[in-house]
Amino acid sequence: MSETSQLLAAIADTGRDPVRGGYSRPVFAAAERELLDWYVAELDRRGLGAETDRNGVVWAWWNPAGVPLQDTVVTGSHLDSVPGGGAFDGPLGVASALRAVDLLRERGVVPARPLGLAVFPEEEGSRFGVACLGSRLLTGAITPERALGLTDPDGNTFADVARAAGLDPAGFGRDDEALARVGTFVELHVEQGRGLVDLGAPVAVAGSVIGHGRWRFTVHGQGNHAGTTLLEDRRDPLLAAARVVVAAREVAAAHPGTRATVGRLQPVPGGTNVIASRVDLWLDVRHPEDAVTAAVVAEVSRRAVELAAAEGCTVQVREESLSPTVAFDAGLARRLSGVLPTAPRLDTGAGHDAGVLAGRVPSAMLFTRNPTGVSHSPEEFCTDDDAELGSVALADVLQDLLG
Amino acid sequence: MSETSQLLAAIADTGRDPVRGGYSRPVFAAAERELLDWYVAELDRRGLGAETDRNGVVWAWWNPAGVPLQDTVVTGSHLDSVPGGGAFDGPLGVASALRAVDLLRERGVVPARPLGLAVFPEEEGSRFGVACLGSRLLTGAITPERALGLTDPDGNTFADVARAAGLDPAGFGRDDEALARVGTFVELHVEQGRGLVDLGAPVAVAGSVIGHGRWRFTVHGQGNHAGTTLLEDRRDPLLAAARVVVAAREVAAAHPGTRATVGRLQPVPGGTNVIASRVDLWLDVRHPEDAVTAAVVAEVSRRAVELAAAEGCTVQVREESLSPTVAFDAGLARRLSGVLPTAPRLDTGAGHDAGVLAGRVPSAMLFTRNPTGVSHSPEEFCTDDDAELGSVALADVLQDLLG
Repeated sequence: MSETSQLLAAIADTGRDPVRGGYSRPVFAAAERELLDWYVAELDRRGLGAETDRNGVVWAWWNPAGVPLQDTVVTGSHLDSVPGGGAFDGPLGVASALRAVDLLRERGVVPARPLGLAVFPEEEGSRFGVACLGSRLLTGAITPERALGLTDPDGNTFADVARAAGLDPAGFGRDDEALARVGTFVELHVEQGRGLVDLGAPVAVAGSVIGHGRWRFTVHGQGNHAGTTLLEDRRDPLLAAARVVVAAREVAAAHPGTRATVGRLQPVPGGTNVIASRVDLWLDVRHPEDAVTAAVVAEVSRRAVELAAAEGCTVQVREESLSPTVAFDAGLARRLSGVLPTAPRLDTGAGHDAGVLAGRVPSAMLFTRNPTGVSHSPEEFCTDDDAELGSVALADVLQDLLG
Repeated sequence: MSETSQLLAAIADTGRDPVRGGYSRPVFAAAERELLDWYVAELDRRGLGAETDRNGVVWAWWNPAGVPLQDTVVTGSHLDSVPGGGAFDGPLGVASALRAVDLLRERGVVPARPLGLAVFPEEEGSRFGVACLGSRLLTGAITPERALGLTDPDGNTFADVARAAGLDPAGFGRDDEALARVGTFVELHVEQGRGLVDLGAPVAVAGSVIGHGRWRFTVHGQGNHAGTTLLEDRRDPLLAAARVVVAAREVAAAHPGTRATVGRLQPVPGGTNVIASRVDLWLDVRHPEDAVTAAVVAEVSRRAVELAAAEGCTVQVREESLSPTVAFDAGLARRLSGVLPTAPRLDTGAGHDAGVLAGRVPSAMLFTRNPTGVSHSPEEFCTDDDAELGSVALADVLQDLLG
């Protein structure tokens, strides 16, 4: 087994989800904290101390020259997962970062500039609804007021959960001092589609992150008894919500290149013999052109209002997050392609912390091949060989950037 | 406040659901057990001892003549609730039974035949999926093998949960000895529709329980990333499930008198940025004619297979419960109407333990007016006056039956 795979093997049993399959590692919950303990121990084995900044980002520095932390090269990813996710989304980038340090040391590299490692909290947004929450807070892309009020599915606020994890809610927010240390950011991530499978290559350099957003549709109706309420007396929000799901697909199909998804839908109260009183559903929309994303959401929202009204219901639509299409720094991407001449260039429909940081710091990404082309699912995969090839590519890139 | 309302006031804070509103009192969970403790204490105050049979039905006997327990008159209801249910569905019948004992004693009634009180577990089926589970086990309408293997939303089996509640799984199953004690069963229940509101009466005598069943549709697709998977590559079970929800309403509307409801729908894994891999939804169908119920389910199932296939998905349909339309004992209902000459006769679309027992024992029901006409919702209601009028009507009926 390759060194990269061995790192991942140590956490292969952490956060397994017996119901959904795969892994459920929501941010700040036990499994994700266990992964963080593993990560800190791995840093420790390498003589690197971990420090958590006021937004919950965990930093470590390899700084043999003992120079001030400025114009550094930083790599890293995240440890939280979607519910029932795969083993590689996040942890592969973290393990590859550790492995890249080992490879550089094996090569006798003694960097003149500091090399940083970073782990960002709540990249998936699967607990508090906003993806890349840690990097958004760090860069000021979300206000601390809004972030602290976000709630998880059990109704806990981000403020309370962060406090329980040892963070001070008063400290959250844009941190220019922390960010000023970063000269260049490179994130390695498992690919989440079948781009590299089709191209027959193990590693790609990212071109752009397609713009994406999340909108929460709340349909209000009248909760009632399933047996005693005649059809004509009903105001059933689940029926209206179902029609919105169908409409979202129709609208997306009319705008080529759009990815529109409802993957989360919750009837309240959710009883078999109960007409729901309310349904929350989340619409995820992505398109390379931000104007198309906006048009799709506007059209689905308009139709949702009509469909709800037809069933005597009302609907509220709230934007939970919106990230425009991000083209990574062109010069930096060219430099990576120079180091990795056989690696193709690949755009991605998935959001990443590197895409958020790109607004403030020259950033780049590497993708490692996923033979199933499936992600956010237990079927997500990365072969032993490819995992190591990814780490080697990352080490090559870091060595070049540090030189 | 009336005596009946005072009884209910003692449990007004037990099992409140801060998220859904109303009450969530799933069987064998803390809140329902707390209600049972309250009930046993109330029995104790009346000098009545509680005994739990091997199916978890709690019996108590007022038997001043000390005669053998045969040809008894039994009244009672249930304490479990749907998620986010009202305060009266179940507990009103239990409180009215206690109050009826008090009224009979105040009247100086000393019954020659024993009067029994019964509380049935899992009437709603909201935890293990099968309504009236306690009475079905008691009467043999469900096998213990099937019941013990049922699972709750957290994956716990009925066997394990019952064992934790102090019951022996080996003891579950048809109990002719327990049933042979019951000569007549009368259940009082809050009305779950607006029948009594429209008729302007506080109490009704039940005519029949409309047949009803539950079917679980499991749609299998391909879990994947919401951002990287193009529409044409998707096999999205939530889209297929949404089309099934819409189809169920269309099919029901084509068969007048049908009530078809999807109130519970669960995407797995349920992440915002994840195309679901599987969706479970539950279809509740009721119609006075059992053949129509069967035809509706067959038609929805046929369309579900087509709709799933159109999205590259598959669907499985399993019957979780089916109860034919039950006409209560005609002679018994006439006798109740003789005691309560102003009470109208009312059929009900809701299922009840009395409907299950009716297959084995002459059974009847009384309904107490619900001014909102809404049930399985926090808006379910019963006025102070009507609650007491219901108890008085129940006492009148029991006094007649015991005489």
